Amino acid sequence: MPAGDHHKKRSVRNIMKPYAELTKEELTEIRTQLRAEYKKIQNKDLNLNMARGKPCVEQLDLSMGMMDVLNSDSDLRCEDGADCRNYGVLAGIPEALELMSDMMEVPKDHLIIYGNSSLNIMYDQIARSFTHGVMGSTPWCKLDKVKFLCVVPGYDRHFRITQYFGIENVPVPMLETGPDMDMVEKLVSEDESIKGIWCVPKYSNPTGNSYSDETVRRFARLKPAAKDFRIYWDNAYTVHHLYDIDQDTIIEILAECKRAGNPDLVYKFASTSKVTFPGSGIAALASSLNNLEDIKNQLGVQTIGHDKVNQLRHVRFFKDIHGLVEHMRKHADILRPKFEAVESILEEELGGLGIARWTNPKGGYFISFDTMDGCAKEVVLKCAKAGVAMTPAGATWPGGNDPHDSNIRIAPSFPPIEDLKTATRLLALCTKLTSVEKLLETAE
Amino acid sequence: MPAGDHHKKRSVRNIMKPYAELTKEELTEIRTQLRAEYKKIQNKDLNLNMARGKPCVEQLDLSMGMMDVLNSDSDLRCEDGADCRNYGVLAGIPEALELMSDMMEVPKDHLIIYGNSSLNIMYDQIARSFTHGVMGSTPWCKLDKVKFLCVVPGYDRHFRITQYFGIENVPVPMLETGPDMDMVEKLVSEDESIKGIWCVPKYSNPTGNSYSDETVRRFARLKPAAKDFRIYWDNAYTVHHLYDIDQDTIIEILAECKRAGNPDLVYKFASTSKVTFPGSGIAALASSLNNLEDIKNQLGVQTIGHDKVNQLRHVRFFKDIHGLVEHMRKHADILRPKFEAVESILEEELGGLGIARWTNPKGGYFISFDTMDGCAKEVVLKCAKAGVAMTPAGATWPGGNDPHDSNIRIAPSFPPIEDLKTATRLLALCTKLTSVEKLLETAE
Repeated sequence: MPAGDHHKKRSVRNIMKPYAELTKEELTEIRTQLRAEYKKIQNKDLNLNMARGKPCVEQLDLSMGMMDVLNSDSDLRCEDGADCRNYGVLAGIPEALELMSDMMEVPKDHLIIYGNSSLNIMYDQIARSFTHGVMGSTPWCKLDKVKFLCVVPGYDRHFRITQYFGIENVPVPMLETGPDMDMVEKLVSEDESIKGIWCVPKYSNPTGNSYSDETVRRFARLKPAAKDFRIYWDNAYTVHHLYDIDQDTIIEILAECKRAGNPDLVYKFASTSKVTFPGSGIAALASSLNNLEDIKNQLGVQTIGHDKVNQLRHVRFFKDIHGLVEHMRKHADILRPKFEAVESILEEELGGLGIARWTNPKGGYFISFDTMDGCAKEVVLKCAKAGVAMTPAGATWPGGNDPHDSNIRIAPSFPPIEDLKTATRLLALCTKLTSVEKLLETAE
Repeated sequence: MPAGDHHKKRSVRNIMKPYAELTKEELTEIRTQLRAEYKKIQNKDLNLNMARGKPCVEQLDLSMGMMDVLNSDSDLRCEDGADCRNYGVLAGIPEALELMSDMMEVPKDHLIIYGNSSLNIMYDQIARSFTHGVMGSTPWCKLDKVKFLCVVPGYDRHFRITQYFGIENVPVPMLETGPDMDMVEKLVSEDESIKGIWCVPKYSNPTGNSYSDETVRRFARLKPAAKDFRIYWDNAYTVHHLYDIDQDTIIEILAECKRAGNPDLVYKFASTSKVTFPGSGIAALASSLNNLEDIKNQLGVQTIGHDKVNQLRHVRFFKDIHGLVEHMRKHADILRPKFEAVESILEEELGGLGIARWTNPKGGYFISFDTMDGCAKEVVLKCAKAGVAMTPAGATWPGGNDPHDSNIRIAPSFPPIEDLKTATRLLALCTKLTSVEKLLETAE
């Protein structure tokens, strides 16, 4: 593989022969070497973190200009004349609706801008459905059983919301093309207790791949047994590309649902958390007018309005969607080398060994890494014992329970690149060591 | 009364004799004059608004300096070194906790700072209790009947939250000293279905008076039949005084509950909505450590954290509680003349007529105005027909249903003072006209 080609001095453990084809003696010899090397790294007292999908300091610095766009001389009225400093405006100010509409690829009137957290919006949708139903349906709290489909590997915070409400999380495998749609169609059409599905359709968390056109079309054509079934379409990485031309594009789901005669089927979410500042961005929900009416009836009880000054700050900083896209290019310039470094080291260290697979995403925040079955927990533990924190193994499955014990989420964004390289080499080493130990154990 | 003493040219309708003592002929004559005057005002095509408890532009301008305290050169790390731009910090940054702790008169570790809306915090407490109970109690959605006590007249948005969850709102009269505590004690101790009470303890909405020491002590000593009963203590106007020395002080409820052996009895709310910018302030909840643990278990599922940059902005603007208090003094300088103008005109126009009563608050945002029974709706309608929007009559009662049809909430903050005077004179006129019509009707 090209990634490792330039690496001249290959050590014995980097033989490209799959571990499964090695003799017990060869494995034992490798184990001895790997253990010695692991010991050496442990003595370095590392303290690194590859667990969190957080932007790094350089990324945050990109948005510091946003702190300058409003000052005490600024006119804080928005386009329609409303004073952004005062109460009111439930759905968002016009210019922020336009920016988010461009970013989310939906008409302005199909949007509500909320506060700083799209996760909070999703939580609130589940909470409202639980207490008040969906567009007049029976509140879920009155039902004996409610289930949600969870694409796995997926985002732990999604699963935790449904779990918190006592909803049964049903795993559906993520394929190259997106969720296993045969399974989704079958489950959703047969089981009325299934009320939704958690999706990250673009640069998915953690696999990094995007749903195919066929997958999105099949989503829009679902015939759910439950009238109150909704697709929870968390388009968290919609503008989060690593490359300029080589980008993933997915079919816009709201429009596709409308064309398919299923306009009310989806709630779509996005935010600027990883565009400007996580925690100080703006988040939005897009849906059909029917759904929005249902939602606004609740939202108007919950709050008088969200932070309009921050909406204004975002719009005045970006000016328009082109400004935002150019801004994302700067994020890409910081993130791309990090992703490439991780992928290159994994290829160099693990390529051809048959003990791990990983993804090479073109956007988003994660690389999904799969060990041999039954090894992920041990790999993460070994990393931890050598000073590198990884996302807990299993976190990408509902309840933290990966039945294969194989998936590990790699988050390359936050650490400085040298730390990232060190951490990735350790991950590779721990993967090899754990795999050899596993193979020897099985051989005995 | 002194307010009208300087007003030399008194018209006939300003005779101080109570309307009830006038003959039918006198009333008829007054009616004719009032109708003529009303007609004249109608022809002025007024378009004024005394409905909304919104700060006026001059008040908002006081906080424009907050837009300058952060710029692209600012260090956005908080005291403990956390980068406020990034994810994390669920309960609030240390310096914001200190400011809100000083403002809310509770220890820092008894606080959670949320987003921009204390109403949203209250909603979320009810929603969580509804779906998950309170510290392990049965979720309210599993109960046949849940009731809430509502101090009346009170805040419509409070009542709407409980109403939205199908909770029965039970009115409890507001007295000079606060809620009728005999009634509160009796209801709460006898009825297990009563799970809470909505309170605005200081400069209450809309009456403007504050709970007496005895009232607060009796609150802290409640013996609710329901273990999951909580006092919803919306201290919205805690620093919102109109005068510097002549201020209301109430006993701090968390500490009093702790002393009374009832540490978990109360949720306390406040925000800077009417300190800096409504919609772009920071809101907080204070409670016992047990309650906070219960709440954080839920909050950590709902969000990764609130807007820390805005927390930092507030602290850097005010520096400390003294800065905030000095800032509130400037608000008072703008609001005080407005309150005094309304009160003075009401006294001048209606004093001694026995057809209306109103409050003279020392803080907060409202004046409560009571007509004769059965007149409030008609007064508000007459005002509307002459171009002045008032808060809908009945809004201060659960379900918008004031059984006496007497209470009207006056919001003096938003209109310029000349508009406010015009609107108040119209209110007085409509009150007199409606009262005369009512008295004549009764006489017939």
